[in-house]
Parts: sequence; C-alpha cells; structure tokens
Amino acid sequence: MKLAICGYGNLGRGVEKAITRNPDMELVAVFTRRNPESIKIMTENVPVVHISKILEWKDKIDVMVICGGSAIDLPVMTPELAEHFNVVDSYDNHKNIFCHYEKVNESALKGNKTALISCGWDPGMFSLNRLYSEAILPESKGYTFWGRGVSQGHSDAIRRINGVIDARQYTVPIENALNQVRSGLNPELEIRDKHIRECYVVVDENADKEKIRKEIINMPDYFLDYDTTVTFISEDEMKEKHSGLPHGGSVIYTGVTGENNKHVIEYKLNLDSNPEFSGSVLVAFSRAVYRMTTRGEWGCKTVLDVAPIDLAVKNREEIVREIL
Amino acid sequence: MKLAICGYGNLGRGVEKAITRNPDMELVAVFTRRNPESIKIMTENVPVVHISKILEWKDKIDVMVICGGSAIDLPVMTPELAEHFNVVDSYDNHKNIFCHYEKVNESALKGNKTALISCGWDPGMFSLNRLYSEAILPESKGYTFWGRGVSQGHSDAIRRINGVIDARQYTVPIENALNQVRSGLNPELEIRDKHIRECYVVVDENADKEKIRKEIINMPDYFLDYDTTVTFISEDEMKEKHSGLPHGGSVIYTGVTGENNKHVIEYKLNLDSNPEFSGSVLVAFSRAVYRMTTRGEWGCKTVLDVAPIDLAVKNREEIVREIL
Repeated sequence: MKLAICGYGNLGRGVEKAITRNPDMELVAVFTRRNPESIKIMTENVPVVHISKILEWKDKIDVMVICGGSAIDLPVMTPELAEHFNVVDSYDNHKNIFCHYEKVNESALKGNKTALISCGWDPGMFSLNRLYSEAILPESKGYTFWGRGVSQGHSDAIRRINGVIDARQYTVPIENALNQVRSGLNPELEIRDKHIRECYVVVDENADKEKIRKEIINMPDYFLDYDTTVTFISEDEMKEKHSGLPHGGSVIYTGVTGENNKHVIEYKLNLDSNPEFSGSVLVAFSRAVYRMTTRGEWGCKTVLDVAPIDLAVKNREEIVREIL
Repeated sequence: MKLAICGYGNLGRGVEKAITRNPDMELVAVFTRRNPESIKIMTENVPVVHISKILEWKDKIDVMVICGGSAIDLPVMTPELAEHFNVVDSYDNHKNIFCHYEKVNESALKGNKTALISCGWDPGMFSLNRLYSEAILPESKGYTFWGRGVSQGHSDAIRRINGVIDARQYTVPIENALNQVRSGLNPELEIRDKHIRECYVVVDENADKEKIRKEIINMPDYFLDYDTTVTFISEDEMKEKHSGLPHGGSVIYTGVTGENNKHVIEYKLNLDSNPEFSGSVLVAFSRAVYRMTTRGEWGCKTVLDVAPIDLAVKNREEIVREIL
C-alpha cells in the first residue's frame, strides 16, 4: 500500500512514524503548503512536494492521509482531494460534521473514490465505543471524559493573549465524577462537574500576571464554564516538564437489563503522545479504506462503516484462531 | 425483525429480556428440547415449541438466536440450523473455533443464509477490542483478565464431586498483575500470576471436607494451575450471597510509538448478570445479521466482520451527528 501525507505538522509526523511500524505500507510522498526545501522528514528517500503539484501524483498513491486542522484546512482540503484520491482525515468539529460528511461524500462519489472522515480517537475509537455500547444497552447513559491531557486548542487560545510567551493547558477529569459514573450512579453532570482546566503559562518579564490570569479564566467557550487554575512558570520549566503531548480519556456507558442488573462498559485510553496515537489510528484505517475502494465501496465513510476485519494484517484463519 | 430463541436456559432468558428493550424487534417463538408445556417464558402470547418442529418455522423467523452450550450443543445445532435460518450463536471453545467456523460457513452458504458465530463478550466484544488494538498498535502486547465473576464451567466441575451439593466459583484477577499491565510494564505473566479461583461449596453433612478441598485444588485444567481457595458454606448462605451471575474483565493492550511513547488501551466490563449482558450482545448483532442477509451477505461471519453501523437503530444522519 502506497500512502502519502498531506500536511506535515505534529499529526503528519505521527502518521509517518506509524507507517514505519506497518510492514505492508510504504510512504511515497509528503505534501506541504510551505517551501518543501524547508522541511526535513524522517523517512529517507521520500520526496517532500509542494501542494500545488499534488494532482500530478493522482495515480501513484493508494491512500492520502490529510493532516490539516479542522477549523480552516479540512473543510476545504478533504472535499477537494476526495475526488482525486482515496483519503482519510481527522475532522473533529462536531457541529459541522454532517455537512462535512455530505460534501466529502459528493466529491468521492464523483471520482469513484473512498473517503474516511473524522478518524482518530475522538472522534474515532471513542465513537465506535459509543455506538457499540448504545447498541448493546439501548437504554443506557453514556459519558465521555477527556484527559489528563494537553488540549492544543486551549493552549493556543492562551498564547494569543498579550504578554504570553508560551502556554500549556491540561484538561483534567474530576475523579469524583468519574467514580460516580463508574459505580453506575448515573449522575447528572454539568460541564464544570466533569473537568477542570490546568494552565501553565510563561509571560513577559513586565507582564501583569493578575490581568492575564483573569483574561484566561474568563475567556468564553474555552475557560469560563470551567474551574480553571493558572500557574506562571519559567521558560526552562515549560521545556523541562511540559514538552510532551499526552492525552487520553474514557467513554463510559452504564445501563440495566432484566430486573435492575447494572452493567458498566468502559473504554479507556492513556496516551503518551496524542499525535502519534492519532496517527496510528489514521494509518490502521487507511488499510481499510484501501480494501474498501478495491471492492468498489465508494463515497464518504466513517469508522462506524468499517468492518473491523478490514483493519487487520492477519488473514481470516489467523484472526478466527488467534483473536476471536 | 422477528427473532426466535433456540434453547431456554440462562442465556435464552437473557436474550428474551434484551429483545423487550429493542423496539424494532419481536420474539416470535422459543424452541426447546424439553417438554414445551413444562416451560413458562416471560413474554406473553409467544409459543414454546418442541425443537423437532423447528423447520416448520423456516419462513416465519428473521434470525434464530441459538442459546446452547459450546461443548455438546452448538457444534451440532449451529451447522444444522444455519442452512435453514439466519442464526447467531455464542460458541466459545477457542480450540475448535475455526473448525466450527468452516462447518457453519458451508451450511449457511448452501442455504443462502447468514450465520454469526462466537458472539457475546468473550469471544465477542473482547475480540473486537483485541483486533482494534492490534491494528492501531502493531507491535503491542495484549492481556485479557476475567472477573471478578462466576465461572459456570468451574462451578459445574465442583458440583460433580462426590459429597458436593452446590458450588460457586469466582474467577478473580490479581490486582498486582492488573496494575503492572496498566502501567505499561509489559510483564510476562504465568497463568497463576493473573487469576485466583475462589470456591464456595455446600457439602453433605457427613462429607470429608479436607478430601473435597484437595480434590478441587488438584483438579487438572480447572484448578491445578491456579491458587485456589475453598470455603465451605451453608445452603442458606449460598442462596443469600451467591445467587447472582456477575462477571466482567478487561482487555488491555500496551504499545509504543515514535521514540518510546507508551500507550495503554483498556476495554473493561463490569456486569451484574453475565447471561443478560451476553444476551444483549447477541440481540444487537442479530440486527446486523438481518441487515447483512438482506444485502445477500451470506455465509459464516463473526463480530469482526460486522460494520458497527449495522448494529444501530438510528439512521446515518443521526449517527454522524450524535455518536461520531
């Protein structure tokens, strides 16, 4: 399988690393909007190509993994590319997800291509677990907790404040809420009850820390609805203690059967590197996209449309004997 | 969807209860090898029919859920019935699973039917999580822990001992092993390191308890390879404290990406009633079997062949908006 990466940031590098661990896959090109000569990738002898030349690669790539941002890049890139390539993206803007689905579907059907959107761990693996749990326990209640992990969107929001040099925001699930859910109590939880937001911030020497703190905790959408802590640290401490991008979380469903027999289903991820794990999910689903397109299953798909067996390298007999 | 149940024990009753929670499903018959008049089912106005008349129902049933034992019943029943009905079973004898698969496949293909074998939570939901995790983290190490829960096979084995009136065996995962695995240490674990076996036994007044204890802990296959505790209790205590059939467990995969970034994936079940949860899984997958057969996807399938979306009651737009 010949894979290409479009967009070489954290996620793109995660995809590149994942490809090296899958012996049936090969990276054939990396596409970028930057000057290709400014980019040094890890894999040897693979070209970095300017995105303006991407259509010249139309017949040389089995699956294009699009590693752009959901705010601005993917809403344009995925529909455009899905007509010419089989694609996988990690679109995660829930509010517009069905609109994205419809645009990508139209484009992929026009080109007889297969596109898979919103792949990763949430949306992605967490979505799968929401669907499985709802199907098994139809009257169940589902909860999603995120963290402890770095939210890049929230870190970026802090960095845009005047006087801020660097920032890292950790989303932290509230242990008490988690325990209530796990014990099957079915609590009603407000936004503030589920997560707190921990911010580590490096500021200019002369910055007004109290003003910055207030600006952070009162930021609508990002922090206002949460209990937020702000800790000012040095650049050295930021580098030393907060250079990783860990993340994770839990999808928990609780439901009953028969005469009030309780059941708890939990899917939990604990990830040292969010972009590397997400990249690994994108690569596994690229295998399925390749198989689906070979069978003529064109149009826009999601992880929920993929038969799990299409993700596996092993053959059916090995799978039935060793995994089932 | 018209469902039928073949075999009315604990699992059959679990399936019956699950059907009532799925508004798109209807139970139309229960088949039994016993005298039908001796069986009282929960659902009103549904006939209990002797298994000898099952073929008379050939065109009245969308999916037959076969609730027999894996040792003797399913190896015969599923291949026989799969030629005439779309079927789901919970075959769990790993050693012979591929042989079962091949026999059922031949039979289902002959009758243009769809069969799904080895459905439940293990094999079943645990198998799905093994496959997903292996696909995402190709060089990962996987562990399955069971319990704390009642093993009916082990309980039955104790009941066959002379002087034993009743017995309940709990499989208990060893906390220290679980913690090592969850922390990503990738320990090498022997059988004895992962689980202990707790036995609660009611014996005849004059029974030799020490002899029975030794017979239990030295029983090959069942107890010899484990640390086993035996506690003798009264019939009243058995009834009061051990009448439920709770179970559960965890599938845990740990792997690395990039420069030694660790990831832990855990799928965990905590179930008050093993047969009711298993029944709920069988019923959810019956919906998928019905959809697959309608599309002409005949032959033997496993949970790993089912696109998750085929389990859902919601339509695609609702699923993309609400679950993805």
